[in-house]
Amino acid sequence: MAKLIALYKHPENKEVFDEYYFNVHAPLTAKIPGLREMKVTKVTGSPMGGEGKYYLTCEMHYDSLDALQEGLRSPEGRASGKDLMGFAGDLVTLMIGEEA
Amino acid sequence: MAKLIALYKHPENKEVFDEYYFNVHAPLTAKIPGLREMKVTKVTGSPMGGEGKYYLTCEMHYDSLDALQEGLRSPEGRASGKDLMGFAGDLVTLMIGEEA
Repeated sequence: MAKLIALYKHPENKEVFDEYYFNVHAPLTAKIPGLREMKVTKVTGSPMGGEGKYYLTCEMHYDSLDALQEGLRSPEGRASGKDLMGFAGDLVTLMIGEEA
Repeated sequence: MAKLIALYKHPENKEVFDEYYFNVHAPLTAKIPGLREMKVTKVTGSPMGGEGKYYLTCEMHYDSLDALQEGLRSPEGRASGKDLMGFAGDLVTLMIGEEA
């Protein structure tokens, strides 16, 4: 199983971010062909105290690395990528991985 | 559901890291009371090309934030934490989160 992992740094305005993320960006991303599951995690803190290094994480599961790459290259994948760069290009770190 | 997320930066020696992580640290962590699931992901790259920002991620699932905190405070949780700081204290970022 292959994953695309998105890590979002803390936005300046969390309410504006959440509103856009959950109502616009996530539904756009959910349309990407081959996407099997999307797991969003809100970071609530760190075991050492204080806020976490990131604000939110999203794991997107695909059957394989090929399926993931195909999804990202699809019109829906490109629309989601363009939207991401528009609202959170300075906040997001993207990584591709495989379950060990 | 509550999660502890560990993000590991790229180690100097990946073979030594993997050997220790999978054979020593992960089994120690697996003993923490209340831990329901442990999902390790090897980062293989970034959609923008190049290697990912992190080398490996681990998600540890607990029934609740209370169960997670109790697990970390247990003798097994403290043993895992001590071990972590010893072999990867300079590589790891830890965050607590809840599925959105």
